[in-house]
Amino acid sequence: MNEDKLHIMRHSFAHITAAAVQRLWPDAKFGVGPTVDNGFYYDIDLGETKISEANFAKIEKAMRGMIEYGDNFEKIEMPIDEAIQWAKDNNQPYKEELLNDLKRSGTTVAKDLDMDEIGVATDGESAVESVTFFKNGKFMDLCRGPHIANTKEAGAFKLLRIAGAYWRGKEGNPQMQRLYGVAFETQKELDEYLERLEQAKLRDHRKLGQELDLFTFSDLVGAGLPMYTPRGTVIIDQLKGVLKEISKKYNMLAVSIPHLAKIELYETSGHAAKFSDELFYVKSHYNQEFVLKPVNCPHHTQIYASSPRSYRDLPLRYVEQTMQYRDEKPGAIGGLQRTRGFTVDDGHTFCRPDQIEQEASMIVEVIRQFYTSIGLWGNHWVSLSVSDKKTPEKYIGEPDDWVLAEKMLTDVASKYNLEARIMEGEAAIYGPKIDFMFQDAIGRETQLATIQLDFAMPKRFGLKYIDQNGQDRHPVMIHRAILGSFERFIMLLIEHFAGWFPFWLAPEQVRILTINDTIGDYVKEVEVVLRGTILMKPIRYGDVRFTLDDRNESLGKKIREATNMKIPVQLIVGQKDKDAREVSVRTQTGEEKIKLDDLSDYLQKI
Amino acid sequence: MNEDKLHIMRHSFAHITAAAVQRLWPDAKFGVGPTVDNGFYYDIDLGETKISEANFAKIEKAMRGMIEYGDNFEKIEMPIDEAIQWAKDNNQPYKEELLNDLKRSGTTVAKDLDMDEIGVATDGESAVESVTFFKNGKFMDLCRGPHIANTKEAGAFKLLRIAGAYWRGKEGNPQMQRLYGVAFETQKELDEYLERLEQAKLRDHRKLGQELDLFTFSDLVGAGLPMYTPRGTVIIDQLKGVLKEISKKYNMLAVSIPHLAKIELYETSGHAAKFSDELFYVKSHYNQEFVLKPVNCPHHTQIYASSPRSYRDLPLRYVEQTMQYRDEKPGAIGGLQRTRGFTVDDGHTFCRPDQIEQEASMIVEVIRQFYTSIGLWGNHWVSLSVSDKKTPEKYIGEPDDWVLAEKMLTDVASKYNLEARIMEGEAAIYGPKIDFMFQDAIGRETQLATIQLDFAMPKRFGLKYIDQNGQDRHPVMIHRAILGSFERFIMLLIEHFAGWFPFWLAPEQVRILTINDTIGDYVKEVEVVLRGTILMKPIRYGDVRFTLDDRNESLGKKIREATNMKIPVQLIVGQKDKDAREVSVRTQTGEEKIKLDDLSDYLQKI
Repeated sequence: MNEDKLHIMRHSFAHITAAAVQRLWPDAKFGVGPTVDNGFYYDIDLGETKISEANFAKIEKAMRGMIEYGDNFEKIEMPIDEAIQWAKDNNQPYKEELLNDLKRSGTTVAKDLDMDEIGVATDGESAVESVTFFKNGKFMDLCRGPHIANTKEAGAFKLLRIAGAYWRGKEGNPQMQRLYGVAFETQKELDEYLERLEQAKLRDHRKLGQELDLFTFSDLVGAGLPMYTPRGTVIIDQLKGVLKEISKKYNMLAVSIPHLAKIELYETSGHAAKFSDELFYVKSHYNQEFVLKPVNCPHHTQIYASSPRSYRDLPLRYVEQTMQYRDEKPGAIGGLQRTRGFTVDDGHTFCRPDQIEQEASMIVEVIRQFYTSIGLWGNHWVSLSVSDKKTPEKYIGEPDDWVLAEKMLTDVASKYNLEARIMEGEAAIYGPKIDFMFQDAIGRETQLATIQLDFAMPKRFGLKYIDQNGQDRHPVMIHRAILGSFERFIMLLIEHFAGWFPFWLAPEQVRILTINDTIGDYVKEVEVVLRGTILMKPIRYGDVRFTLDDRNESLGKKIREATNMKIPVQLIVGQKDKDAREVSVRTQTGEEKIKLDDLSDYLQKI
Repeated sequence: MNEDKLHIMRHSFAHITAAAVQRLWPDAKFGVGPTVDNGFYYDIDLGETKISEANFAKIEKAMRGMIEYGDNFEKIEMPIDEAIQWAKDNNQPYKEELLNDLKRSGTTVAKDLDMDEIGVATDGESAVESVTFFKNGKFMDLCRGPHIANTKEAGAFKLLRIAGAYWRGKEGNPQMQRLYGVAFETQKELDEYLERLEQAKLRDHRKLGQELDLFTFSDLVGAGLPMYTPRGTVIIDQLKGVLKEISKKYNMLAVSIPHLAKIELYETSGHAAKFSDELFYVKSHYNQEFVLKPVNCPHHTQIYASSPRSYRDLPLRYVEQTMQYRDEKPGAIGGLQRTRGFTVDDGHTFCRPDQIEQEASMIVEVIRQFYTSIGLWGNHWVSLSVSDKKTPEKYIGEPDDWVLAEKMLTDVASKYNLEARIMEGEAAIYGPKIDFMFQDAIGRETQLATIQLDFAMPKRFGLKYIDQNGQDRHPVMIHRAILGSFERFIMLLIEHFAGWFPFWLAPEQVRILTINDTIGDYVKEVEVVLRGTILMKPIRYGDVRFTLDDRNESLGKKIREATNMKIPVQLIVGQKDKDAREVSVRTQTGEEKIKLDDLSDYLQKI
């Protein structure tokens, strides 16, 4: 079944759901019922009555009955005034409101309303004279269609959840209940989807974040402002350590900036005008207006500008892992997916136009190495966004520089076999870019790494270097991120690994579990070995993070607790191990005996 | 001469200065003329005329004439109305304003006015009836005194600088000129002071910070918001590295928090009420009020509160190097001394009362090690602030806990031979504390390290642990800083070392200076040795930060530039060095030949 047919079927499912609800609760008032990813929903108002998941079986049974019976989807055209009268007669005030809007202006302005889904017969630019309805069984609904011919054509479905939703998405409007379902052509596809959903729930970073004690939120601090516990901070520090190694290797220079600046900085950069809704404004007692930094590039331009620069000084590669802040909508905030404060591994390279290829190559190489080291290289695709040659006036910068830059990026993409999809017209107004999209273990996709050329900002800030001929020139700026935001990256890691972090990232790498208390001396020897082990990869000179569980508890309980905390290496030590001078190493893949003398090497290679 | 006498003499110098100014500019209108550290100033209004440093010789000459001539300081008592008339007759509007204030309310409300210095005859609680004047030569001034008997008793002096100052320190008031001078009993003391001042100028961190390319400010970003260049960031990172080593050794746990929180967090902690003038308020578009964090402790309580805690879990030692923000007065901001954003090495330990001694000992030990490693241990004194036993009602917490805590801190101080000065009544309301004051190379004192017990905040936030008997108890919180704020610490380091950072801290540790271009191969060998050298102290596993200056310039120029940048180790390499397989090592203390094979060891021991 192609995507269009699937979409039509899911839309028909919204109608079948509403028909079932109407049969069970004849007074139900209906809002809108569009499709969403993998399924559909319908907004329903039952007054005091509330549908709960306990009602799902009953509703699904009614739906299945309708599907087996085989109702035709019947299309009915109706003059607008007649339609309004129908809504009145049938006590459907939400439909009546939509119809009145359509009559008046030919459009509905609410969010969440897909024009395809409601019975609009025009393109929405002028008042409508007639609308269409679709009828399946006794249920009739304002709808443009199209639909499947008969309910027998509907595939496999399941009601998923129920949530509150304001009518037309607007706070203050009546609150309705949004009934979500999923639908696929076959039961097999549905089962697979539900299995992925189950997996996603098990891997949910919010749930695992709490269970593994990685981060926390507080009502007193505010939504979208994560605080990382000691365990979560280990992960951040390990990632920063890898980025630091890379910086050292590629002569990237760490800099350090504050988290606010005068609004003038963002007026110059253009962010104040473009992103004013996302800016946190800061008030000083001394008649000055500040803004919490939503990005780091403007600050970095000021470090560049702090000294005169010559062509010999370039490239200058500034990097920093720093928090930035955006005033996200409270409703959009959730877990680490979307936060108001987030830490980015930000980098800005200032270079000459002739250095673009060398610099972009270096960044691609770094991205390749980094994602290979965490096993995600390969699970990705790359886009190369270039300008639309038909509208050169849309872009800032010298046309020659654009031609050069796009050729260089194309060459880099081909040199590294990125198989980049060329996105014509998708370049930013200030320059072309390369983006990297990565898939996690259960197939979800996130944009993480990016390389963006920028011809505009150096001009806005009047940044200069003196070229070989003693002339002032503007440098090119390259914005780049390797892992993107730490928040989103850690979310991806948690869900990708289902909490079983690779050894080098695990907050607690090793836990010694004692079987009894007669082996204290030997446990001390094991600890000495662990303390003396210096891990070399992927960060040089890492100590082993280990703990000792020598409580007077059963081994079973100790193993259970260590496994719940997803400790990658559990060292079980008992009298027999002591006698044989070995340890029982328990990992996700099984258990094996390792000689104490070989333990260090074993951990090195893990 | 004791401090009181010195103070009187300096105050008399203010009058002598004013007398000289009046002789030279008879229309001068005078504000106030108090003493300050090491000297005095007088606020003067000459209308369009401006005094500049070029006039200092002339003024000083007139002053010296008065001192040689020997005017008596004559005290004159005058009814207040007569005094006001005097001010009118002599066209002294500032004095007239002060006199009117005194007449009306017995006080002047302006800042910067020391009641001792002006002719107030009462304690300032009710209107005055008469005031005193002092007269030296022809100059008569509203003044309470006392003064030296005769100008011949004045010691050695020098006018230092001239600055703008608003009348009564208030923006909008007329701007006056503030003429600063210093005075000592003997010329020798004055000369020593001026030499120290000269040293301080040479060491001024603002000047060196720019010359050595360590940090920068930008008008677009705002005053008091330093940005660290790559070189400055190396210093920060090295300091953080040392703190990280310490954290690892003492099982302190890094955590990570955002830079803002809802105002409710600070209402609970008490900061909102107590420090409202210093808070930066942040506005969200979504009807929420935030504050930029002025301290980190309230956030850290929320990490503590994120899990249930048992007596076995304590102590929990959270540490973090994070920026915090305070809305300092624009006039108070300068260099790194006082900034609006600053990074602190903050730590909060949550422990049981019986663990206070162990925890405080650990922190003292850490402080001792840290300051010993940078050569400042010994240049310090310690205060131990305890409660005033006569007013126990002033303090929060259980009296028994106070007795225990103060005994423990006293024991710790004596165990470490801190020779702490006991400051009775200087404890904070929430707990006793130990502070460490350090002196830099030219004798200036800064408070850096601190250990503060806190019985109050855990209660305010309802923090708990379950004790051995299953009862809920509040933990004790210990606030501690080792280096304090990075900004102030780096300022101290720059000025203490006059920019010649110790080897491990220097942004650029080694620079290779080539004598000619015939030795490229050998220079590569030197680079290999440097790259292979892993420094072990005070941070394990540090790479050598080196650069190569192989420009076609004279050796003299290369040495001059490297020395201006205060590179601690300059490796000069020429044909002879190549032939002998050695390098000429140039440091602040001299030059010596080192075999290439020994270079690594040499750097290790530096």
